[in-house]
Amino acid sequence: MTNLNVRVELTQNPKAKTPEDKLGFGTVFTDHLFLMDWDAEQGWHDARVVPYQNLQLDPSVGALHYGQAIFEGLKAYNNGGKVYLFRPEKNFERLNKSADRLSLPQLDEKFALEALKLFVSVDRSWVPTTPGTSLYLRPLMFNSEVGLGVHPAKKVTYLVMASPVGAYFTAGLKPMRLFVEDEYVRAAVGGVGFAKTAGNYAASLKGQLKAEEFGCQQCLWLDAKEHRYVEEGGAMNVFFKINGEYYTPALTGSILPGVTRDSMLQLLRDRGEKVHEARLDVNDLFAKAKTGELEEMFCTGTAAVVTPVGTLVRVVNHETGEKEEVAINGGETGEATKSLYEELVNLQLGLGEDRHGWLVEVCDAE
Amino acid sequence: MTNLNVRVELTQNPKAKTPEDKLGFGTVFTDHLFLMDWDAEQGWHDARVVPYQNLQLDPSVGALHYGQAIFEGLKAYNNGGKVYLFRPEKNFERLNKSADRLSLPQLDEKFALEALKLFVSVDRSWVPTTPGTSLYLRPLMFNSEVGLGVHPAKKVTYLVMASPVGAYFTAGLKPMRLFVEDEYVRAAVGGVGFAKTAGNYAASLKGQLKAEEFGCQQCLWLDAKEHRYVEEGGAMNVFFKINGEYYTPALTGSILPGVTRDSMLQLLRDRGEKVHEARLDVNDLFAKAKTGELEEMFCTGTAAVVTPVGTLVRVVNHETGEKEEVAINGGETGEATKSLYEELVNLQLGLGEDRHGWLVEVCDAE
Repeated sequence: MTNLNVRVELTQNPKAKTPEDKLGFGTVFTDHLFLMDWDAEQGWHDARVVPYQNLQLDPSVGALHYGQAIFEGLKAYNNGGKVYLFRPEKNFERLNKSADRLSLPQLDEKFALEALKLFVSVDRSWVPTTPGTSLYLRPLMFNSEVGLGVHPAKKVTYLVMASPVGAYFTAGLKPMRLFVEDEYVRAAVGGVGFAKTAGNYAASLKGQLKAEEFGCQQCLWLDAKEHRYVEEGGAMNVFFKINGEYYTPALTGSILPGVTRDSMLQLLRDRGEKVHEARLDVNDLFAKAKTGELEEMFCTGTAAVVTPVGTLVRVVNHETGEKEEVAINGGETGEATKSLYEELVNLQLGLGEDRHGWLVEVCDAE
Repeated sequence: MTNLNVRVELTQNPKAKTPEDKLGFGTVFTDHLFLMDWDAEQGWHDARVVPYQNLQLDPSVGALHYGQAIFEGLKAYNNGGKVYLFRPEKNFERLNKSADRLSLPQLDEKFALEALKLFVSVDRSWVPTTPGTSLYLRPLMFNSEVGLGVHPAKKVTYLVMASPVGAYFTAGLKPMRLFVEDEYVRAAVGGVGFAKTAGNYAASLKGQLKAEEFGCQQCLWLDAKEHRYVEEGGAMNVFFKINGEYYTPALTGSILPGVTRDSMLQLLRDRGEKVHEARLDVNDLFAKAKTGELEEMFCTGTAAVVTPVGTLVRVVNHETGEKEEVAINGGETGEATKSLYEELVNLQLGLGEDRHGWLVEVCDAE
């Protein structure tokens, strides 16, 4: 790995580790950070693994004022003997698509992956082993140029941080209630919805709070034009099993192309299921939930992998606030959802047959 | 001012000042920063003026990853004898509207204004005096909570930084070329377009670069739904003089409600002009530019105040790349634009009659 040209400075003060049954999501960080700088003259340079530390940022840096920041999320798994990454190439491919839309520089995807493996191997003692846990990896690229002019960054920072995590949703596979959001909008076609950029998440917070007011865990976003077609569930993609076939919203430009979404589509096709990437009318989904034709519904994402949806809630009259609820599969986790979740988690852990070459070995486990 | 309860720690190392004819936009910062912290338990606390310094941020803070950041821009003017702010209440009113949309805490607007005045008076020697220059003030509020969970900030930083600035557009009142952007979208109704939030600016960079490819200084954004109705010009609001009457896009939720836009509407009404806040079809504007009915066009914003538009450019055939250009007022700055610019700049400097009470005195000039 020395030809990677990554400087490694190990911490002199390793942190105490949080017990694995006390891990939440993204609150505990490992002993190190990966950092690399970019400027227009030098390109990417000074790749380094350093002790975890605060960033020293001038108050004018573009990331804080103008949101020129993109990120990724992926996980390293410890299956007892080896540490694996799951489809990390997909994350770097998407990071570069986000970079293009947000006018940030491209990363060398092969270098980024090798650097990530080096970083994970340095902190391999932090990859937890309890089922359901993993080491969450967060690549982040942001405008670190000093100055208030609005223009693409001339100075950029790329970092990767790592956080040992438990289950994202503490309720586990317990079905969620989703609130159909028909006023606030997450993204429009022509905007930045397909990019994993900071501002998309800030824009979604209000919808999340509103969902909670209606007793829901997440919201279900609709399209910006007609407020009628399903886009995403909270910060996750969404799947429906209708009359024995599977449906997920097509990637129109306003939806995040999830890596877990892609893996799920492949798993379903591997099983010989009929799968449709389509435009899905929320009114039709409510109707089919009532008749039972909508048999199961679940969300997919890196953090939670698969989360069943048991109930959809929407406001049917905005003046009176009258709402409507429909249960899916009687509000319980469906058999297909459970089985898909288990198959995917086993694959991620290296316990299933890796028929698509999705696993990337990092190093021996500690 | 002592009852403001703002701690003031003056710098021991004042910086050398850049000559006023060398000032750009947002590249030189004064000797101090205003800082204040918020958390759910204590509310806003520890208001302080401190020496300008780097921020020490954990790499996981929410502003960097999820763009939960809002800002304002306003100017302090030195008219020779006094330092004035121009309509600062409007900025704090808007900051609170942005805070509501982005799920950030509300500021006490009166306190924020008094604190701003104190901050400006500490750095009053930095308010430049050359015509066209001013001290640009940048209030910024952002999620400074440590952790990767996506939720509204439980810890927030508010700061104000100050930058002596020259003219925003170095070309001065030279008319701009605007590129009509009909693919990328800035904001949709139901989104965050009306809020001054970081992500809106990141999302706009690609459009700006495309405008430059077409030899234009800025782009003209259209609505997200039909890509047909005018929204904003680059990061500015836009006005049209058509058959002797004035038009600007109505505030539909996707447009930033500019303070300069509001001042311009008032100035026009004070002059007895007919003013319409309306839905403006870009096809109609091209047609009226050709007949000469579209007599003048200009943009308004805090940074540039008023900027004339001399040419509109658009792609008429996306397959062939064929484009169309129309000149407005022969590509020259119109008389009305020039006169409105001068009246507004004089008002900001305290040289005109302050008939609406727009000026807020800060202190004697140095």
